[in-house]
Amino acid sequence: MSSETPTTSPETGLAYYQDRIEQAQKLIADAGIDWLLVGPSADLIYLSDYDAHGSERLNLLMIPAEGSPSLVVPTLESFLVGKAGELAAIHPWNDGENPIDLVKTIIGDQPGKKIAVGNHLWSAFLLRIQNALPGNSWEEAVPILRSMRMNKDEIEENKLFEAARRTDEAWEEFLTSGPISGFTETEAMARLAGLTEKRGVKNVWGICASGPNSASPHHHTGDRVIQTGDAVIFDWGGQYEHYFSDVTRTTFVGEPTEEFVRVYDIVRAANQATLEAVKPGVSLQELDRAARNVITDAGYGPAFLHRVGHGLGMEVHEEPYLVEGNELPLEVGMVFSDEPGIYLEGKFGVRIEDSVICTPEGGKRLNEATRDLVPMS
Amino acid sequence: MSSETPTTSPETGLAYYQDRIEQAQKLIADAGIDWLLVGPSADLIYLSDYDAHGSERLNLLMIPAEGSPSLVVPTLESFLVGKAGELAAIHPWNDGENPIDLVKTIIGDQPGKKIAVGNHLWSAFLLRIQNALPGNSWEEAVPILRSMRMNKDEIEENKLFEAARRTDEAWEEFLTSGPISGFTETEAMARLAGLTEKRGVKNVWGICASGPNSASPHHHTGDRVIQTGDAVIFDWGGQYEHYFSDVTRTTFVGEPTEEFVRVYDIVRAANQATLEAVKPGVSLQELDRAARNVITDAGYGPAFLHRVGHGLGMEVHEEPYLVEGNELPLEVGMVFSDEPGIYLEGKFGVRIEDSVICTPEGGKRLNEATRDLVPMS
Repeated sequence: MSSETPTTSPETGLAYYQDRIEQAQKLIADAGIDWLLVGPSADLIYLSDYDAHGSERLNLLMIPAEGSPSLVVPTLESFLVGKAGELAAIHPWNDGENPIDLVKTIIGDQPGKKIAVGNHLWSAFLLRIQNALPGNSWEEAVPILRSMRMNKDEIEENKLFEAARRTDEAWEEFLTSGPISGFTETEAMARLAGLTEKRGVKNVWGICASGPNSASPHHHTGDRVIQTGDAVIFDWGGQYEHYFSDVTRTTFVGEPTEEFVRVYDIVRAANQATLEAVKPGVSLQELDRAARNVITDAGYGPAFLHRVGHGLGMEVHEEPYLVEGNELPLEVGMVFSDEPGIYLEGKFGVRIEDSVICTPEGGKRLNEATRDLVPMS
Repeated sequence: MSSETPTTSPETGLAYYQDRIEQAQKLIADAGIDWLLVGPSADLIYLSDYDAHGSERLNLLMIPAEGSPSLVVPTLESFLVGKAGELAAIHPWNDGENPIDLVKTIIGDQPGKKIAVGNHLWSAFLLRIQNALPGNSWEEAVPILRSMRMNKDEIEENKLFEAARRTDEAWEEFLTSGPISGFTETEAMARLAGLTEKRGVKNVWGICASGPNSASPHHHTGDRVIQTGDAVIFDWGGQYEHYFSDVTRTTFVGEPTEEFVRVYDIVRAANQATLEAVKPGVSLQELDRAARNVITDAGYGPAFLHRVGHGLGMEVHEEPYLVEGNELPLEVGMVFSDEPGIYLEGKFGVRIEDSVICTPEGGKRLNEATRDLVPMS
C-alpha cells in the first residue's frame, strides 16, 4: 500500500543503523528498561531503515537492553525488510497465525520487566501484548529515544535543508504562476502541491485556508472560492529522503488592508524574535515566549492560539515542542518550526512559518522563501 | 494537515450518528464495559462524523455505557468538530495544558472500571491514560464495535459501490491509454492513479509490481522499468465519501507465456470460487478455503502466500478477515475483498481482486472491471 521506494544512500549503510541501535540499547539500559518495542513509524525507519506498512498485520522491532534485536514481520512483507534483516533476527508469521505468540516467546514469561513502547504502535497491539505478558510495567519510549531523534546529524541536516530548499522554490514559482482568485482552496493547494512534487518532494500535504477560514489554524482545505480581499494561508510540505519540509506563507488577494498589513508585520516580527532567541542552552519555552511577547505587546496575545513550534525531521511534528512548560534546553542540531500566528475570528489569520536549526552560533533558517508580503491576484 | 473536506449528506444528519452512538453504548453495556475511548480513526468518523487529525495533540471521543459522551479536543481544532460538537460535550485544551487531566476528570478516580480502547489510538496516549487511571482494566474495542462496522447499511453500500465503479472505470481507460513498457513502476502507477483521481476518488494509493517484483505481494513500487515479458500487478484504490475501493488486476506486457496463462486462469478460478462460496451463515474461513482448494488442487498451494481477503469500508483493511481460523459467520451487508494470488519467486505473480458484498442470495461483486487477461504493450 505504500508507493514509496526505500531510500538507500552509501553513507547510511548497515553500520549507521547498527550504531543507532546500540545507542538506543545504551539509553534503555541506563533507564532500567528491559525491552524497547517499535512498530511501523519514523522510529522504526530511524533505527532500522525499515519503512513498514502500518496495518492490522503486526510488524514489531524488539530491542533488548542487551543482545540481539528481533523483528516480527508478516511473511508476505518479509521481502521488504532490507537492512533490518541484518540488524535483527527475523521472525516471520503467516496469515492465520498469532504474532503475539512470537512476541511472548521472545520476551519470555517471567514478569517484572520494564517495557518501553514506541508512540505510534496501535493500542490494539499494545493491549494484546500487555494481556499476553501480565506482571510487567509499560512506559512510553519517546522520552528515552528523543535525545537521539531530536539531535540531527549532518546527513539528516542535509536532507532537511534539501527538503526545505525544494519547497521554497515551489513557493517562489507559485507566486508568479498566475491568479488564485476564482480558484477553490483545494484547487489552489493542488497547484502549489504540484509545483512542490515536481521538485522531487514526496507525500506532499497541505492546508489552504482563505478569507475567514484563515482564522482557523487547522482548517480543512475545502471548496470555498478564493476572492479579492481574502487573506490566504498556505501551510504545506513533503518528504525528501524520509525528511520533511514544513513551511507556511500568507498572501493577500488584491490590495492588502491596513489591518492585514499591521497584523502581518507583527507576525513577521514574532517569527524573527523566535529565531533570534535560539541559542544552545536556552529552554524551549523561551522560544514560545519570544514570539508571544511580540504578539502580546502588540495587543493580539489571545489571538495567538497555539505554541510557536514543533520539532521537524522524519515526522512533521516530533520532539522537541516549543511550548510553555517545556524546560528542555536547546541543543545544537535540533530542528524545529518557528510559526507564530494571529487569528481574528470571522475576519482573517496570518501565519509565517520557517524551519530553523540550532547551531553553536544560534538559529539558522532552513527556509528562505521570501517572507515579504507578496499580494496575489 | 488533512486536505479533505468533511462530507455532509442530507441522509446522514445528526440522528444517523446519534443512533450509532446509542448502538455502541448498548454493545459496551452488554459487554460490561464502562467507557469506550476512540481516537482519530475510521471509528471516530463512523461514530461522530469527526475526521480528526491524528497527531501528538490528543483528540479523544469518550463514550460511557450510559449518559452523554465527551470529546477532548485541541482548542485549535475545536473549529472542526462539526456534528461531534452536538453529539458530545466538548472539552477543549490549549497547547501547554495536559489533556490527560481532562480524561481523568471525565472518567473519575474510582478504580475497577472496564475501559475499551479503539485500535488506532497511539500507544503513547493509552500509556499516559493507563498511568493516570491505575486500577482499571483495559481491552480492545474492535471485537465490540465490529458488529456495527462490518454490517454496512444501504448508505454505506452505495458509497462502496460508487467507489468501486469509479475505480473500475479508471482501469478500463488505463488498458487503452497506451503502452506501459519503458515506464517505471512508479510512472505506470501514477498514470493509473491519475485516471482514478480524475473520477473524484480521493487519497488514491497503489502498488505496481512488475516482472519478478510481482512475486512479492506487498512490493514497494519502485524504479524498475517495465519491459516486454513482464507480468504486472496493479493493486490500488481510494476513497469516495470516506469509503474505499480496493481492486487488483494483473496484466502481461507482450505475448503471455503458457505458464502465465495457466497461473492466471487458476487465480481467476479461485477468485470465482470465493465468490460462489459466499452465503449468509457460512464461516469466513470457508471463503479462504474455497480459493485455497482451487489453488492447491492445481499444485500451487504453497505459492498462495496470504489470506484470501479482508473487510473493506472506511478502512482498506478492516473486520472481517477471510482467514483460516476465523469462524465468524458471514452476514448480509458484509463487504470484503476476494483476492487470491499465486507468487512464483524470481519469476512472476498473479493476483485478481474484487470487492464483494454478502447479500441474502449470496455474493455480489462491487467491481466489474474486466477480469479477462488483457495484455498491454
